[in-house]
Amino acid sequence: MKVVCQGNELSDALAKVVKALPIKRTTPILDGVKITAIGDTLTLFATDLELAIEKKINAQVLIEGEIVVPGKLFADYAKKIEHEEVELDGTNPSRLNIRYMDSELFINCFDNEEYPIFKEIDTQKSFIVLKKDLKQIINKVIFNVAVDDARPTLRGVCMNIKDDEVEAVASDGYRLALTKTMIKNNGVIDRIVVPAKSMAEVARLIDEGEETITVYVEDNYIMIDLFHTKIVTRLISEEYINYEKIIPNVFTTEVTLDKKAFEEAIDRAALINRLDKRSCVKMEIKEDILQLYAHSDDGEINEKMAIGLKGKDLTIGFNSKYLIDCMRAIEDKVIKLNFTTSTAPSIINGEDPNWLYLILPLRVIG
Amino acid sequence: MKVVCQGNELSDALAKVVKALPIKRTTPILDGVKITAIGDTLTLFATDLELAIEKKINAQVLIEGEIVVPGKLFADYAKKIEHEEVELDGTNPSRLNIRYMDSELFINCFDNEEYPIFKEIDTQKSFIVLKKDLKQIINKVIFNVAVDDARPTLRGVCMNIKDDEVEAVASDGYRLALTKTMIKNNGVIDRIVVPAKSMAEVARLIDEGEETITVYVEDNYIMIDLFHTKIVTRLISEEYINYEKIIPNVFTTEVTLDKKAFEEAIDRAALINRLDKRSCVKMEIKEDILQLYAHSDDGEINEKMAIGLKGKDLTIGFNSKYLIDCMRAIEDKVIKLNFTTSTAPSIINGEDPNWLYLILPLRVIG
Repeated sequence: MKVVCQGNELSDALAKVVKALPIKRTTPILDGVKITAIGDTLTLFATDLELAIEKKINAQVLIEGEIVVPGKLFADYAKKIEHEEVELDGTNPSRLNIRYMDSELFINCFDNEEYPIFKEIDTQKSFIVLKKDLKQIINKVIFNVAVDDARPTLRGVCMNIKDDEVEAVASDGYRLALTKTMIKNNGVIDRIVVPAKSMAEVARLIDEGEETITVYVEDNYIMIDLFHTKIVTRLISEEYINYEKIIPNVFTTEVTLDKKAFEEAIDRAALINRLDKRSCVKMEIKEDILQLYAHSDDGEINEKMAIGLKGKDLTIGFNSKYLIDCMRAIEDKVIKLNFTTSTAPSIINGEDPNWLYLILPLRVIG
Repeated sequence: MKVVCQGNELSDALAKVVKALPIKRTTPILDGVKITAIGDTLTLFATDLELAIEKKINAQVLIEGEIVVPGKLFADYAKKIEHEEVELDGTNPSRLNIRYMDSELFINCFDNEEYPIFKEIDTQKSFIVLKKDLKQIINKVIFNVAVDDARPTLRGVCMNIKDDEVEAVASDGYRLALTKTMIKNNGVIDRIVVPAKSMAEVARLIDEGEETITVYVEDNYIMIDLFHTKIVTRLISEEYINYEKIIPNVFTTEVTLDKKAFEEAIDRAALINRLDKRSCVKMEIKEDILQLYAHSDDGEINEKMAIGLKGKDLTIGFNSKYLIDCMRAIEDKVIKLNFTTSTAPSIINGEDPNWLYLILPLRVIG
């Protein structure tokens, strides 16, 4: 293959597709980005066999063909020549010759015969969603996925696709976030679990635009079509937890408070036992005051803030990290904390009625 | 002790003094910041026994006294209450009680009897220099200090204090930068070596201002007085290398080139062998063209750029890291590369006649 293209378009496309490269090196060839020149298009493709990202750019194709180029190095170089017109000459597919200005670079390439064939998605079953809605529901739940290997399903984001809405859920078994958004459905009623890495890349690749995008759903894969960029991801096959059952909706203590003041107070309280894994903050709710208490070998802290209370006084403890993560994910001015007993799951609501955060309390002594 | 002060002043002062805390934990008490309340002043002090930083702020002193507070934790908290008025109550010196808004924090403290007494500087021997000049000469040489333990003296910046100028020099044995600036001298003719960590903190703590500062020089210490902030540092006792002898001043190949184009070309050339420790870039200087060549198992690169040449053609090799470091440190538009043979030290000049960079070539094959 031999093409001429614009450095900025090449650089931008490579920056996008390399996100699909394996994080840990497994099979060397997967460190490559496959580049295919056909017609007037250059197609860049990378995959770790779970997630695949494909991006097309315009190019003046002199000779059609394909080549598999070490992705990270190629992307790094593309960034450094993004103001230039670039000629990519891969007529010898074991070596890509890149020409720009008066200079030239050779990158030793992989054997393109060895590059794996990735699943093609061929279905009409799909749903249509606003870009900004999909981006938002991912960002509002994804921080809760499990990072260890406990249960594969908890390392994914569950997308519960219903008639006219999709419910996104993520949980690590100790806390859970749920949010939903409207969709236009073309024949999918399914509950799928998308790996967190893929979900994070989707959120990164789409903007806050008002345009719609289509998500195609097959048995073990989904494909998201973003005009010149396509994302395909394998799904987690294990069934998701039955989360509906654990979300309470009757409460005996309901607290309304200023989110910013609460976030700052939790931040300070958490600092004193930042080195403890459990990092427990005790909340004492009494009349119109919320008092936070935390301690460690370094010292202790008492934070007081004014609240609105409906219902009974309560003392309850939480892992402060979970509260902080939750506060970082939302931008509401006022939030509500809803409790029953000091051992039952509690619910945090913001101003958006479609979002909720569930958190299991810690046992507090004294 | 018991004082009331402004959170922002406390936070700012702590952020400055904690830079003197030991990087590696050695003696626990040195992790503390000593806080002394006398008159209407709160003095904060930290040291790793090599570098000491002291900062004074105004405070309403209710009870005079001192306390030694874990520095990092205290600084982190101060940042989080910088918009508040803060009461520090250390009447029990084993525990500092910090009150702000309706909340309070206790930090367990060190035994202040155990805090070491740091050298007091008491000399009139000094020199006076413009803040911006001192900041600049440090920043233009410090990146060359040795980071390993080879020779202690190379881990410092040499300040060669003459009658009316000070020459700052730093070198790791493979490259060297030298720059000089005017001073007003009060009886110091000395060649001192200041530890790089201390020099870096001095550069960070002073601004680009037109005001002058005074540097007091004793046998084994210097003290820099920045109004409400004082910095004292121990000096490296080993004698500095005799650098004057190795700086050449007669050249047979003199190249003038555009700094930005050269920096970008070196950046690209260096990327191909970024994983090699030697990271060699070959320069071929021929008539009005400079060609850079580098290679590795990943590929090879040829960069060409236009130059002005006075003298003979030359082929010479360098560690690209040293060239990149040098380019990052200067902002000149045009630079000059001066060579004699392919094995002799080379000199880079910018537009500032008071600065020079010396670099030893690598042996290139072929």
